Amino acid sequence: MSDDRDYYTGVLDAVMERVRTHIGEGRVADYIPELASVDPDEFGFSIATVDGEMYSTGDHARTRFSLQSISKVFTLALVMRGGSGSDIWKRVHREPSGNAFNSLHQLEFENGVPRNPMINPGALIVTDHLLSDTGDAVGTLRELMCRETGDPDLHADNLVAASESGSGDRNRSLAYLMASFGNIHNPVPDVLEHYFQQCSITVSCEELARAGLFLARHGRLSDGSELLTPSDTRRILAVMLTCGTYDAAGEFAYRVGIPCKSGVGGGILAVVPGRCTVAAWGPGLDEKGNSVTAAMALEAFTDVTGCSVF
Amino acid sequence: MSDDRDYYTGVLDAVMERVRTHIGEGRVADYIPELASVDPDEFGFSIATVDGEMYSTGDHARTRFSLQSISKVFTLALVMRGGSGSDIWKRVHREPSGNAFNSLHQLEFENGVPRNPMINPGALIVTDHLLSDTGDAVGTLRELMCRETGDPDLHADNLVAASESGSGDRNRSLAYLMASFGNIHNPVPDVLEHYFQQCSITVSCEELARAGLFLARHGRLSDGSELLTPSDTRRILAVMLTCGTYDAAGEFAYRVGIPCKSGVGGGILAVVPGRCTVAAWGPGLDEKGNSVTAAMALEAFTDVTGCSVF
Amino acid sequence: MSDDRDYYTGVLDAVMERVRTHIGEGRVADYIPELASVDPDEFGFSIATVDGEMYSTGDHARTRFSLQSISKVFTLALVMRGGSGSDIWKRVHREPSGNAFNSLHQLEFENGVPRNPMINPGALIVTDHLLSDTGDAVGTLRELMCRETGDPDLHADNLVAASESGSGDRNRSLAYLMASFGNIHNPVPDVLEHYFQQCSITVSCEELARAGLFLARHGRLSDGSELLTPSDTRRILAVMLTCGTYDAAGEFAYRVGIPCKSGVGGGILAVVPGRCTVAAWGPGLDEKGNSVTAAMALEAFTDVTGCSVF
Amino acid sequence: MSDDRDYYTGVLDAVMERVRTHIGEGRVADYIPELASVDPDEFGFSIATVDGEMYSTGDHARTRFSLQSISKVFTLALVMRGGSGSDIWKRVHREPSGNAFNSLHQLEFENGVPRNPMINPGALIVTDHLLSDTGDAVGTLRELMCRETGDPDLHADNLVAASESGSGDRNRSLAYLMASFGNIHNPVPDVLEHYFQQCSITVSCEELARAGLFLARHGRLSDGSELLTPSDTRRILAVMLTCGTYDAAGEFAYRVGIPCKSGVGGGILAVVPGRCTVAAWGPGLDEKGNSVTAAMALEAFTDVTGCSVF
Repeated sequence: MSDDRDYYTGVLDAVMERVRTHIGEGRVADYIPELASVDPDEFGFSIATVDGEMYSTGDHARTRFSLQSISKVFTLALVMRGGSGSDIWKRVHREPSGNAFNSLHQLEFENGVPRNPMINPGALIVTDHLLSDTGDAVGTLRELMCRETGDPDLHADNLVAASESGSGDRNRSLAYLMASFGNIHNPVPDVLEHYFQQCSITVSCEELARAGLFLARHGRLSDGSELLTPSDTRRILAVMLTCGTYDAAGEFAYRVGIPCKSGVGGGILAVVPGRCTVAAWGPGLDEKGNSVTAAMALEAFTDVTGCSVF
Repeated sequence: MSDDRDYYTGVLDAVMERVRTHIGEGRVADYIPELASVDPDEFGFSIATVDGEMYSTGDHARTRFSLQSISKVFTLALVMRGGSGSDIWKRVHREPSGNAFNSLHQLEFENGVPRNPMINPGALIVTDHLLSDTGDAVGTLRELMCRETGDPDLHADNLVAASESGSGDRNRSLAYLMASFGNIHNPVPDVLEHYFQQCSITVSCEELARAGLFLARHGRLSDGSELLTPSDTRRILAVMLTCGTYDAAGEFAYRVGIPCKSGVGGGILAVVPGRCTVAAWGPGLDEKGNSVTAAMALEAFTDVTGCSVF
Repeated sequence: MSDDRDYYTGVLDAVMERVRTHIGEGRVADYIPELASVDPDEFGFSIATVDGEMYSTGDHARTRFSLQSISKVFTLALVMRGGSGSDIWKRVHREPSGNAFNSLHQLEFENGVPRNPMINPGALIVTDHLLSDTGDAVGTLRELMCRETGDPDLHADNLVAASESGSGDRNRSLAYLMASFGNIHNPVPDVLEHYFQQCSITVSCEELARAGLFLARHGRLSDGSELLTPSDTRRILAVMLTCGTYDAAGEFAYRVGIPCKSGVGGGILAVVPGRCTVAAWGPGLDEKGNSVTAAMALEAFTDVTGCSVF
Repeated sequence: MSDDRDYYTGVLDAVMERVRTHIGEGRVADYIPELASVDPDEFGFSIATVDGEMYSTGDHARTRFSLQSISKVFTLALVMRGGSGSDIWKRVHREPSGNAFNSLHQLEFENGVPRNPMINPGALIVTDHLLSDTGDAVGTLRELMCRETGDPDLHADNLVAASESGSGDRNRSLAYLMASFGNIHNPVPDVLEHYFQQCSITVSCEELARAGLFLARHGRLSDGSELLTPSDTRRILAVMLTCGTYDAAGEFAYRVGIPCKSGVGGGILAVVPGRCTVAAWGPGLDEKGNSVTAAMALEAFTDVTGCSVF
């Protein structure tokens, strides 16, 4: 283990070396006040290994931030749990998609079936599905995250959720469009409520890395039980690599080279199958909506460890 | 007057001659049960002259039907009343538009500003505007129609309105998309409620022809007061001619050649400026959503009277 | 006739009164040098009556300018001559169309069938059709215009045609897209050559008004022979009113209120059925591509004469 | 080496086991007669290792087939050779893209800059770039392939190229649209000629696997010289994984899990970085345009070898 520790200490040093002079760069998401008020100079980075070790750097690896779109990975996993997810793929495709400009157009053209579960309309379908399965989508998500992190207190930030709802008319438009095609099964306001809640859950880098470890363990949770089949785990990782970082998935595939999912809260979750998860956080975003420092840190991570898939 | 009567009797005969063997053709709107249950064999046709005469034919010129999209002409007139409508043209364009396939796409591309007030998103803007102006969009519309028809009892059909609402997710999607661009000012559910109500008002051909006479009188209501300036009246007629019959406006301009507005209830209102209005009704629709027999009747009307603008 | 002369003299005075202080406004088309070099201060206006009279004003009613898109009306008429045009409507629709932003998209979506013959892809279909019919589309067009104007010398400006071709890649893209759907029957380069030639024909206001008179005469040429049936003449006028002025057809229908076709050379041809044609020319264009002074002159014309259709 | 041979023999057996009963499935590309006439029952599969070994199975590992879109990988590599490719990324993006329905629309919307070099418009840009660089795009490509395969005779099939050209109007439309935005630098007919030629080069599985080995060798050619920097090699592999298999890239990422490029000739080239290339061929295509048996064979290959990146 001390060898491992030395190794990872070196990795963390290389990451900090790369990121240090860029902390504060980018533009903090400002469509709601709760995100806009985050200090742009914060940065955190954590590696959780499948052996149960945690290695962190940055002053804010234990500072909580808003999960936002990273929640889409966890709700998708929950919908697919126990191999039960085959139905979901009738309601959402799994193909990469230019997302920036034409989400509504594509959705209209393709009869209300979104391109993949990582874009907003796809994630709304997943939340709707999870709500049908469990009666409480956000509760089920919270339960998973609490169990895996060992922190019974993980929860949605109600102020953030309320603000998301207040500026959520475009998501409402997407949801009602899908409903008009019969592809939303619960009342639209309920689905949106759960969706805004799931996005507003707050976690730290350490918690996020730990919560996502099942993706590095071929689907097994911390207690050894199987959340996902190995095959479905691969499915989710493929979706993350090809669609996980908005309209920069091609760039991320090249620069980082491992499956990632980002959120406008500034966090990114990355997975090295069989080995570890990595969570990075910095609030400043680039023009595509991905954290500048978190992306840079992950790039340094794969450069140093050589774990890029390419 | 008896000369007039002879003349119009001849016109009505020519209309019935043309239509007779086609009654029952087309497909009754079936997206809500209240429309689907209408007898497809009904037909009515009425001419209301600016001199106050009414000439009708068909067995059902006094049978009430659902106003549907024809209401868009009246709400637009109310928003423009007294020359006050200049604001509305900042929120909706007045250009013809292919409507069939890309309403959401166009709206997304053009930042939430609809192409014209005769397509659904444009009509939602008009209803929102009227609601802001008056506090009661559908009440104001009802009041106008009751006054002009002399029937204090004209009203929305609550069953139809409830069904419209129940199948109105696409209109919700359009409204929330515009709201996301800041182009809806009242709460979206309120706007939709008024919109569904206005569409579900029921009128007969005679009532509709009479209610729309101000359009043939250069904007003057039945009591001689001015609802619209002559210039704004021309504006509405131009919008009707170029955008009033869904994706068949070009065909109507040629075949009928006067400003028309149709609704999926099977009614069409047409205007001969300075002379008369014509209301025709038959529930069977063609593939573009316009009444088969009403369109045919109007074609016969302009053939016989030579009042096509071309 | 002297009464007529007095009347039209008054009309011309009113037109000049309205236009005078605006001459020079707008932006001369500059995508090819031959158009960019036209003096922006020129203006001409001519009325040709069905009785054979010509009334002109402005210093440049006999100055020739580039016909450009106005040629689309004449090629359409030639394709429909003698009632033979029914085939063309299988290859091009006749519905109004937002043209500004999505011509290719619409064409792709609707399998290579353009929305109407006044937009570029539709006009290319018409030219292709005329080429198949006659073996020489531009020659047939030139022959018609020479005969009707009495000037055997009307011809294409070869420099303009060459420049149009040199900047014609978007038209090539449209033509090949339609060809890929099987909707262009001649070799694409031939069709484009004829199209660029037809656009570069130069005429004066007097010549244009005279050449278009058959549209005011229900289809009859100057020698009394029938070019178009009355019904097909109406068809063309309806297409002009709803689609003749780019993405400002709705505005023109209201402001001018009679069928018009404009070109980026700064000319506009308007028709008052049964009475006269009007040709106006001023090189400065508004942002939609229509001549500022020509539109203004036509607006004054219909205001004074009361011949707006609304 | 004999251990390796045993290992790979086992892999080949597993591949044949999986594929055997499916040979002949799918639909042979039929848009040109030269492709339509290929025997649907042929199948070939070859592995070329970085150690210089070749392992093949199927009756047709040495039968030549049409390279088609697989050529896009090689022209892209040539444009980026020696680290010189930075300019190309100003002319084409590198983001995944739904390709099936809206190539023209997206290109129009994004001002003539294609989403990535694996879709047709992007590949046309690459060919144009290579043509500018070398004066002979297809000659340069042929030279590379001849050198790497050791076969001086590899060449385009002129009949196929002529047929491609004969049915290439959609590609012409794409090219002229990009030219209208200034994003094609050579004469469009020249670019298309080279493009059709490059697609019609014929290779066998063994030749294709050998020709692509530089992608598994971090950019080094068979003689040890560097065609691509290691970083640019990763770039190409990332583009292949996210965009290399038409509108099925997400599905391939999951099912196969290594970078692939397919062509409608029925071939697929796959790369295991640092280890080997795999070429599979079967003419029957699925509805997305990828070979049914080649995809199946690659899926078996990654299952057995465990070399999926996920």
